[in-house]
Amino acid sequence: MTVSACQSGATLASADDTFVIGELRPYLAGLLTREQAAWKDNGAPWWDPPEALAAYLGDGKALRPRFCYWGHAIAGEGTSPRLLQACAALELLHAFALIHDDLMDDADTRRGRPALHREIGGQHLRHGWAGDPDGYGRAMALLVGDLAFAVASRLAAGLPAPALTQWQRMVDELVLGQFLDLAGAARRDRSAEVARTTTLLKSGRYTVTGPLRLGAAVAGLPELPPGLSRYGDLVGEAFQLRDDLLGVFGDPRRTGKPVGEDLVSGKPTQLLAHAADMLPPRGQALLALAGTSAFTRANVAELTAELARCGASDRVEQKIRNNVRVACTLLDRAALPPGVAAALRGLAMAATDRRQ
Amino acid sequence: MTVSACQSGATLASADDTFVIGELRPYLAGLLTREQAAWKDNGAPWWDPPEALAAYLGDGKALRPRFCYWGHAIAGEGTSPRLLQACAALELLHAFALIHDDLMDDADTRRGRPALHREIGGQHLRHGWAGDPDGYGRAMALLVGDLAFAVASRLAAGLPAPALTQWQRMVDELVLGQFLDLAGAARRDRSAEVARTTTLLKSGRYTVTGPLRLGAAVAGLPELPPGLSRYGDLVGEAFQLRDDLLGVFGDPRRTGKPVGEDLVSGKPTQLLAHAADMLPPRGQALLALAGTSAFTRANVAELTAELARCGASDRVEQKIRNNVRVACTLLDRAALPPGVAAALRGLAMAATDRRQ
Repeated sequence: MTVSACQSGATLASADDTFVIGELRPYLAGLLTREQAAWKDNGAPWWDPPEALAAYLGDGKALRPRFCYWGHAIAGEGTSPRLLQACAALELLHAFALIHDDLMDDADTRRGRPALHREIGGQHLRHGWAGDPDGYGRAMALLVGDLAFAVASRLAAGLPAPALTQWQRMVDELVLGQFLDLAGAARRDRSAEVARTTTLLKSGRYTVTGPLRLGAAVAGLPELPPGLSRYGDLVGEAFQLRDDLLGVFGDPRRTGKPVGEDLVSGKPTQLLAHAADMLPPRGQALLALAGTSAFTRANVAELTAELARCGASDRVEQKIRNNVRVACTLLDRAALPPGVAAALRGLAMAATDRRQ
Repeated sequence: MTVSACQSGATLASADDTFVIGELRPYLAGLLTREQAAWKDNGAPWWDPPEALAAYLGDGKALRPRFCYWGHAIAGEGTSPRLLQACAALELLHAFALIHDDLMDDADTRRGRPALHREIGGQHLRHGWAGDPDGYGRAMALLVGDLAFAVASRLAAGLPAPALTQWQRMVDELVLGQFLDLAGAARRDRSAEVARTTTLLKSGRYTVTGPLRLGAAVAGLPELPPGLSRYGDLVGEAFQLRDDLLGVFGDPRRTGKPVGEDLVSGKPTQLLAHAADMLPPRGQALLALAGTSAFTRANVAELTAELARCGASDRVEQKIRNNVRVACTLLDRAALPPGVAAALRGLAMAATDRRQ
């Protein structure tokens, strides 16, 4: 993929936000160690959930903290303990979203490893504990997700009021997006409107615009300038569109999750919304089966080929490119502190031009 | 049950806290109507979760708001918008806890109706939606629980700092208690220590002590006097002990949920901890099976009879009586505003001497 307006920033993105990786990991580790200590003080003889959460957080691209860092930088501030707190809340919110999403989708893998509920089910089996290992894995993962959300909410509640407002808006959008993802699949909705709203809300907003807004609000800027808010939504949407494409055409060895699951469950993606307009009759028949129990693994492979052939996947690729291009143009027009525009160009690429 | 020290307050409890019922319901309804409106504004064509949550909240004994009201009264204040906000947060936290608890326990019924995930699964089936109705019901109920927790956290974050601190403590204890409930069953723990901690934390604290603390903190009292905190823990523990007894010996037509489920899953209750000391050999053999797949429905009936015969259930009854008696004595010693002690006596009875 070539996005000329953005290329110059591609190598600059990590120049100043390395603090996020450098300080955030120990901060989160310390937080969860204190959580374990609090559980012991409360009389618990075991503390698997904070331990599981600490291990879960050790991975990932830290995209959200990085966007938060640069949102903070927009307001002209350096780093601060509040910024670190906001970044930690974002990582915990992301863990909550992934853990509960994998439960809702009954997913087997995440990041090339068993999904958390499967991992905990395996632990149950290895220890020879009582009851059903799968049920235990699901119940305990649900609780680990709840713990992540509880700790994230606690951190967010300690932020300045404008940042807390942005946080709550982001959480609300995340829940709504997740709902549309499930409800759109069940209702077999193929409308462009629902696909667009779902794309933006189920992950785009809490990955890009929300963290930018949060960082800016921590630094004393209650609302982003409209151009940057628009940049966030364009890149956030493109981030999820890339995810949708990787979920159908990606290499599972790199994405760490199987391909075709969105087709099996008939998720309301923009790819399928385009397909509803573009597929020839045979493809339409396959699309009508997606999300039903009659849809076989062979159908997944067939529909995947049809999606490429009819041009629906190209159209999504094109939209990703276009979003990133427009987003970068908006950056050029915004009066940003030195280095910030370049960093945001690089992050736009990192979020959308990826294979995992 | 006769608890002489408490009888005088039994009819007074609802004299002043009727505001809770009178104002709280419309407050919660308004909150969730605004939530639905926000979803529509965000482009959602459907809004099942806030609707489901509004319906879910229409029921229940409002014990937690009532304790919160009287906690507030301890600090000598009347009512206030902040108090209403705290009460609403408690009801939402309770909904979150019940919805997720029913998922974790794979429960079929609650309050004499299908558990929320079953109800939503039924809705899926009636509409002929795509995918697996059970899976959809579980996924959507998980999300409704998340929404309840998100809205509760938002309300709590707007409370004065000392109240927020009490809130966070309560949430942390709730998550830990829920963990011990699951982990104790899996590990087949029958120790008195784990049973006691689980009893107190999984519901006792967030039903009595937590709401009392929250109400007091809203009124400007950061910590309860030690005697009242102790009252809360005694009544909270007794509340859960009553729940444990009803779960084994109750009338499902009144409790609204089946009996014996705690035995089937081998939950770490005080009843089973006593039984581990008191059962004769045949009962011990049954107890060893509880929580495993070898434990049959006939075994449930047998173990239930053994639990009564060996005196374990009497011992729990005795502990409930004793807790309430000591709690009421502590009330007598506390210098409380007029009417508060009588109301708290009545609530102690309402929470522990019940058939549902």
